[in-house]
Parts: sequence; C-alpha cells; structure tokens
Amino acid sequence: MSILVVGSLGLDTIETPFSKVEEALGGSAVYISLAASYFSQDINLVGVVGEDFPEKYIQLLSGRKIDLEGLQIIKGGKTFRWSGKYLYDMNSRETLLTELNVFKDFNPIIPENYRDSKLIVLGNIDPELQMNVLNQLNNPEFIICDTMNYWIERKNEALRQLLKMVDLLVVSDSEARLLANHPNLIRAAKIILQMGPKKLVIKKGEHGAFLLTNDTIFVAPAFPLEDIIDPTGAGDTFAGGMVGYLSRANTISDEELKKAVIYGSVLASFCVEKFSVDGLIDLDEAKIKNRFNQFRKLIYFED
Amino acid sequence: MSILVVGSLGLDTIETPFSKVEEALGGSAVYISLAASYFSQDINLVGVVGEDFPEKYIQLLSGRKIDLEGLQIIKGGKTFRWSGKYLYDMNSRETLLTELNVFKDFNPIIPENYRDSKLIVLGNIDPELQMNVLNQLNNPEFIICDTMNYWIERKNEALRQLLKMVDLLVVSDSEARLLANHPNLIRAAKIILQMGPKKLVIKKGEHGAFLLTNDTIFVAPAFPLEDIIDPTGAGDTFAGGMVGYLSRANTISDEELKKAVIYGSVLASFCVEKFSVDGLIDLDEAKIKNRFNQFRKLIYFED
Repeated sequence: MSILVVGSLGLDTIETPFSKVEEALGGSAVYISLAASYFSQDINLVGVVGEDFPEKYIQLLSGRKIDLEGLQIIKGGKTFRWSGKYLYDMNSRETLLTELNVFKDFNPIIPENYRDSKLIVLGNIDPELQMNVLNQLNNPEFIICDTMNYWIERKNEALRQLLKMVDLLVVSDSEARLLANHPNLIRAAKIILQMGPKKLVIKKGEHGAFLLTNDTIFVAPAFPLEDIIDPTGAGDTFAGGMVGYLSRANTISDEELKKAVIYGSVLASFCVEKFSVDGLIDLDEAKIKNRFNQFRKLIYFED
Repeated sequence: MSILVVGSLGLDTIETPFSKVEEALGGSAVYISLAASYFSQDINLVGVVGEDFPEKYIQLLSGRKIDLEGLQIIKGGKTFRWSGKYLYDMNSRETLLTELNVFKDFNPIIPENYRDSKLIVLGNIDPELQMNVLNQLNNPEFIICDTMNYWIERKNEALRQLLKMVDLLVVSDSEARLLANHPNLIRAAKIILQMGPKKLVIKKGEHGAFLLTNDTIFVAPAFPLEDIIDPTGAGDTFAGGMVGYLSRANTISDEELKKAVIYGSVLASFCVEKFSVDGLIDLDEAKIKNRFNQFRKLIYFED
C-alpha cells in the first residue's frame, strides 16, 4: 500500500552529555520516511524546506526511493531549524532554539499523484493543516496522526475535529494524559478512544509502548540498549516503522498492528543508537528481522 | 522449598487522592509472606512488633498458614508505624511520618526450626542485619535481597559485602541507578551484577520489571490497571509472588525466574487494587492463573 507522509524537514543542532552535531538532517517527515523506506518503495513525502537545504540531504532521501515531488523548496527561504540539549539521563531535554523559517507558512499541497495514497501519516503539525491534507485525498485507507502538547493546548477544537477522522493516533504518555486530562494511562487511553480515533498507540520512551483498541490491549517493551546516543526522532521513527510494516503486510488488523508496534520499536532502537538519522541509513532486512526476533526472546516466558 | 522471610511489620496510615486508611496492616515481611502464601504453606516469618500489634493481624497471617514462631512481640513496646500520602498521579508519594519504635532495635533471631529454610527473602532492613540473618542459616539454596536508597548511601560497605552472598537482588530503577552510579538502566544492571549478585530484578512500577542475569535479559510489563487504589507494598508483594512461585516450582533456573517475575507482577497487580493488604487476602489459584494468562495475551504477537 502506498504511503503519504506529511511533516517537517529541518536542520537539527543536538547536544548530548557526550557529543554534539550541528545542522544535521532532522524533522518528523524525514524520520518517518526513512524508517518506512525499509519496508516500502512507495513513499510520498510532502514538506517544505528553504533554498539552503543541503543537496546531500535531498540525495539521501531520494537514494532511499522516497518520492520528493511533494517537497516544496522555497526560493530565498530558510529551512526550519531546531536546537536541543539532552540532560545527563538522556530522558529529558531542553529546547535551545526553534526557528520555524519556511515552516511557519507551510501549506501542505498534495500533488495529484499522491492523492490516492492509502496509508497516511500526519506528522506533528497544526491540526488545521492536518485536516487540510485529509481534504485533498481521494480514498485513504488508514490515517495515522501524531500531535503534541502545544496543539492539545492551543488548537484543541481543531484537534478534536481531526481526531474523528483518524484511524490511529500516536502520542506520548504525557500527551495522552494531557489530552484526556487523566493521570492513569489506561483510563486516559479509553477517554481518547471516545474522542474518535479507532486505535491508539501511547509511546513511553525507554519504557516501550501500548497499543489500545476497543477490543485489545498490547504492551511492547523498548529494546534495552546500553548506549543511547541521540533520542531525537525516535517517536517519528517508531511511527515510520509502523506504517512501513503495515504497507508491506498489505492488510490492517489488530494482529498486524501489534507486529507493526514491534517493528516501530525495532526501527526506533536503531535510530537512537546514532546521531541524527545516521542509525537509519545503513539498515537492511536481516538486521531488522534479527532485532524483531530479539524482541520476541526478550518477552518470552514458558507456559 | 521452604521460605524464610525477614523484614518489617507495621501499622500504615495511607492517604491517596481518593481515600485514607489508618493503622492498617503493612510492612515488607507482611506483603512478602502474604503474596508467597498463595504458592507455599511452608513460610517462616521473622520480624518484630510491639504489644499494641492487633491480634486480628496475627490471626490474618496465621490464617494464611504463615509460621510466626520467629515473630518477636516486645512487651510494652510499640509497633513500627509509617504514614504516607500519594500524589495525584499515584506514582509519587510523600512520607509524612516514620516511627521506628520496636523496629529500631530489631535484631533478627532465626529460630532453630527456620535455619534449614531453602529460599531466603531479606526484606529491606539494615544490610548488617541482613548479613546477621545469613550467618544464622545452615544451607540456604537461594537468597533474595531487597534494599533501598537509605542503605545504599549510608551503609554502602556493608551492603557491598552482603551483595557477594546474594543470588537475586531486587531493587527499583532509581535504586539501581544510585547503586551503580549510572543513568542507563541496562549499564547500571551490568555494573550491579559485577558487585556479586548472580541475578538482578529491576522494578519499574507501572512500567513493569527487568530480569537480568549474565546470560539473559527478560522484560515484563506491569499489568495495565484502570484503578490503582494504593501502591503501598507493591514491590514487596512482587518479591513475595516471585519467591512463592519458585518455592512451588521447586527448581531455580532462568526460565523459572522469568515465570516468577510474571507471578510477582500478577500478585503486585492484585495488591494495588485495594488498600493495605486487602488485595492479598481473598485470592485463589484460579484468579492468579487467570491473570497470569492475561499477561501472556498482553504481550503476544504473531510470527
């Protein structure tokens, strides 16, 4: 099934207790597409960059067979920049700088060729823009949506409208608690399912992820890693691994979604092992399948 | 295999956002023994209470076939009291009061009849006292040890000596990070295994638990609960469920330990559904097995 990814592309400056990178490739659409590219060669990207966006990053994305017809390059514009610093435990971070630049006026236009895409991933952007994207599509089969605290607080009404259209909402635990206004995660999940999305994934970082539907609950651990180099993009990579797997499976059921959650966790585990997108550029089917099997061993217990 | 449990017995006053209980039965030895009593009828308890310890609590413990020969009742003494308040999210708590009373001078004396016990659980007390216990035993087969931040910081040398004798250390994630002085939990675990314990369980509260040995790593989720009434004693109950299962299994291997972790999680999930020990008094084999099977479903994904 073809995939449409709408989100940000940016240049990230990231500092950790151990190292630093400057103006590295980043953005939700980038992480989602790269992760999905290990499962699908039918990925359509919609986003915006400035004229300063390095050609090598364009090459990197198109080298992974990601279609860039939907990538707007704004003449004279400056690409979105983000800068953050991870603290000692790598679980919390400070944002040092957010320069929206061309992303400020981002208006996602879906090329004619993309409008029949079946699997839609709405990266974390203004819910009004996410809705605009949906309005341009012909017959999407499964809509995956991300959001964040900022939109939950400031565009709650637009977000609530959008959630009625969404098949799978993917949020972090703190976002879920905020959206549902309930501290218990399972209760929060049930409240969110009442808001419209048919299914919900709650990401808990180093503690793994939950999948909840009206019929099932599934719990996946995060892959236990001794060296976490850079957590940036892990959540988007998770969504990208999920949608990639669903595209390859070519069928959407709760059982396939459970496996998609594990594949999402697999890709996220590779992502955080290196800076920026470096963990997502030299994977292959064997490495991915091997880690998928390690997940199974990790949770297996006898009868 | 016979079980020896050494730890505290106390009267807990617990406040949550929803309710409050006063002078309810509590203490590590209590939670451990009650949880284990669903698997074994050969449980030997060593602890201390004052003359004010209610007879009904003695009845409750002996009614569960827990041997109380090792329970010292200090004439004219006052029982250990603890009072705590859980905050809105039920994950963090404030200690309002700790009155050690007779527990201050606790000197665990192991009755002759207990000295051949095979499975030993050293509840969270001064590591010097935990060592004294071990010195009184004839031929223990498997020693499980709990500790806390207080001892890691103030009795580090004694604790390090003790860890060399321990088969399984059971600590929380924050305790593991403190003991190993490393923020990454997997690294911390490997550092701790170097200190002596053959195996390690790290409890992560609502995020489940890890089992680590030199050969294996196992991740268990916590049971997803919509209503957490009182988290007090969940960690001790977890250890009690583990040791109880090992006693019944009558063999100790990594595979049995994995199942023990799940049974520990099962018992802990029942514990937190009610105040004090109320969740641990009306269980039976069917209820326990049923939740064990739900755990398997929770993490199951297809090949």
